[in-house]
Amino acid sequence: MNNIALEGVTVVDMSRVLAGSYCTMLLADMGARVIKVENANDKDVARIYGPHVGSESGYYMTLNCNKESISLNLKTEEGKKILRTLIEHADILVENFRPGVMKKLGFDYEAVREYNPAIVYASISGFGQTGPYSQRPSYDIVAQAMGGLMAVTGDPDRGPTKVGANVGDAASGLMACIGLLAAYSGRLKTGKGQYIDVAMADTIFSILATRNHVYYLTGELPVRHGNRDELSCPYGIYECSDGHALIGCAHRRFFQSLCEIMGTPDLADDPRFCTHDLAAEHRFELDPIIEKWAKSKTVDELVALLSQAGIPTAPVYNVAQIADDPQIAGVRKMVREQDHPYVGKVKVTGNPIKMSETPTDEIRRHSPMLGEQTDMILKEFLHYDDEKIDELRKDDVIGQQDYKQCEKRE
Amino acid sequence: MNNIALEGVTVVDMSRVLAGSYCTMLLADMGARVIKVENANDKDVARIYGPHVGSESGYYMTLNCNKESISLNLKTEEGKKILRTLIEHADILVENFRPGVMKKLGFDYEAVREYNPAIVYASISGFGQTGPYSQRPSYDIVAQAMGGLMAVTGDPDRGPTKVGANVGDAASGLMACIGLLAAYSGRLKTGKGQYIDVAMADTIFSILATRNHVYYLTGELPVRHGNRDELSCPYGIYECSDGHALIGCAHRRFFQSLCEIMGTPDLADDPRFCTHDLAAEHRFELDPIIEKWAKSKTVDELVALLSQAGIPTAPVYNVAQIADDPQIAGVRKMVREQDHPYVGKVKVTGNPIKMSETPTDEIRRHSPMLGEQTDMILKEFLHYDDEKIDELRKDDVIGQQDYKQCEKRE
Repeated sequence: MNNIALEGVTVVDMSRVLAGSYCTMLLADMGARVIKVENANDKDVARIYGPHVGSESGYYMTLNCNKESISLNLKTEEGKKILRTLIEHADILVENFRPGVMKKLGFDYEAVREYNPAIVYASISGFGQTGPYSQRPSYDIVAQAMGGLMAVTGDPDRGPTKVGANVGDAASGLMACIGLLAAYSGRLKTGKGQYIDVAMADTIFSILATRNHVYYLTGELPVRHGNRDELSCPYGIYECSDGHALIGCAHRRFFQSLCEIMGTPDLADDPRFCTHDLAAEHRFELDPIIEKWAKSKTVDELVALLSQAGIPTAPVYNVAQIADDPQIAGVRKMVREQDHPYVGKVKVTGNPIKMSETPTDEIRRHSPMLGEQTDMILKEFLHYDDEKIDELRKDDVIGQQDYKQCEKRE
Repeated sequence: MNNIALEGVTVVDMSRVLAGSYCTMLLADMGARVIKVENANDKDVARIYGPHVGSESGYYMTLNCNKESISLNLKTEEGKKILRTLIEHADILVENFRPGVMKKLGFDYEAVREYNPAIVYASISGFGQTGPYSQRPSYDIVAQAMGGLMAVTGDPDRGPTKVGANVGDAASGLMACIGLLAAYSGRLKTGKGQYIDVAMADTIFSILATRNHVYYLTGELPVRHGNRDELSCPYGIYECSDGHALIGCAHRRFFQSLCEIMGTPDLADDPRFCTHDLAAEHRFELDPIIEKWAKSKTVDELVALLSQAGIPTAPVYNVAQIADDPQIAGVRKMVREQDHPYVGKVKVTGNPIKMSETPTDEIRRHSPMLGEQTDMILKEFLHYDDEKIDELRKDDVIGQQDYKQCEKRE
């Protein structure tokens, strides 16, 4: 046993697209052995999402490093038998099909616990496994809408706004991962597994906890503030000559320093802006003055000037800037590179959980091609020989390994 | 040992405001014993955030159910000695001070592992414990700006937009929780603890993984689509007569059904909209037609009509609607109520990790008043008697328990 946190933990990964795959990605990065079960007729849909490099999807590659893929046709009895054997050996199972699909396949928690009572099993869905909405489709945008996130995002003069990342999917994957690991550590003590049922709408609503409480106590609904704040000014994102930057004058002294930097020290004494609260109250008069000044600077100039004066500030980064940043990409290694045998070197986003004894940013294995580890897994878990495996391949129980004919990208 | 996942796990909680407290909230809900260390002169800042009920902050109450609070003055040697004893008994420590503060207090990981090598210790900060930005302030808005989230959120004709929930804080708390639980389960096997270092900017960037990969492969930067989509139309949020609703025509057949419902079946054959891709291409002509129709319906009417036809749809909910919803508040119990001895009944947001053997939505203990469990913890962990405790209170090593003079709310 070395120091990898989850070394020796085996995960059967039935997940598709994002929420479940993000959860198992973190498990794999922390040392678990993750086996994704898919098939040419029922592959992880992420494999369809572009851009592709040859047969490989960028979307799939970014979420599935450090995992293995076994191709199993679950419409055959033999395929089901193999999956059952894998599950018998597994510690954890993750799935994010629509509620009912795993039961139809014969692998819902009630069925699986019969032969593996120690398994820790997580399902992620839009609204949970039971209740009137359980069969509704679970798009990220639905969870953002019904979980309350869109209602509080966007400019006050416009409607509710979608968040530009799939936070409903991703955060649900994180919640499932937490439930799995808590249950797994409990099971190490008791020997008993359990079932974890995470809903995307619940997850979004939980993340809003520190806005919801105002409603519970006062009946007041949260409002959209766009990029600004009703309690401080200037506070928010301002347009510069070549991009946007944050100015965060959360205290009076920051505003006074800013007025000095702007070359208009008297502005801080203007009767409309001469206290923190007055400046916030008159923000619709103050903001245009700040906006005009910000427009005269580049983002780098503005951030440098404010930083020197100790005023909270930040550039608004896009992915290209982050991939170049000395802290986030540099020190923190948040852009990593996998060396894929067919695709070559491909960048993927790193793991934010930095552990002193467990190198979560290491790519021990490239993201698998469809069914790439089928033979290896069948030999190891079912002790099949090449002859038996050829037979299964002929009978369409396992896939055809077409990727072996792929050409490497030069 | 009963079935609570984390029963028997002791957490020393040095966290303040949101990220760390959200992490320890989940640990507490799953059965861990969480002891928050604070003091009248260095209390959890969340206690200052309103709205308040009497002395108690709604913000604090929503994040700290099921925890205990010990008041310790860490400027005294005696206070430090007590904290050291608590840490000697703990399995997990969580903190989200600015990097360096725990070292100054004498309780950084290097110091603590000397007397508790099995401890699993997580730090959450804006940019991580090392590197050029490590001392920068770690507001949520900074992480949203520099992690890349604002650049992809908002309407295309406006600037980058802040997300209306503190996703930088909350998701970092989730990442820390995952690292802690993975390390804890590893430690159950090896006896060795480790250190977990989570940065808010890294976390946001990770959540954007499924947008970042496009840039890695093509060099193209993600753009802001606001509430709409460039690949489908109608797809997004539309204004109704009394609110907003999602219409998600991700497939041609959905649009055809919608045209029937709108009473304009011919619209689907209009040369501009007669294929899925053409409709998406001419979305700036199609959307106003859909918008006009949506405006003539209430949200409930629109959602009912589309649901009946199998077209993906959803209302855009605010917190009041969620708190009334039969699925999210009803079946899923995402609004729970604590009975606080001084404040009375107070609603707090529920836990989205539903576990079959571990009732995460139960409130076993109300959110603690400042130092409420001081005496109990000192008696249990340090075997002090009342006389000794009175002495410590006189010497200002522990707090004054002013809350005992509070009046209950009727």
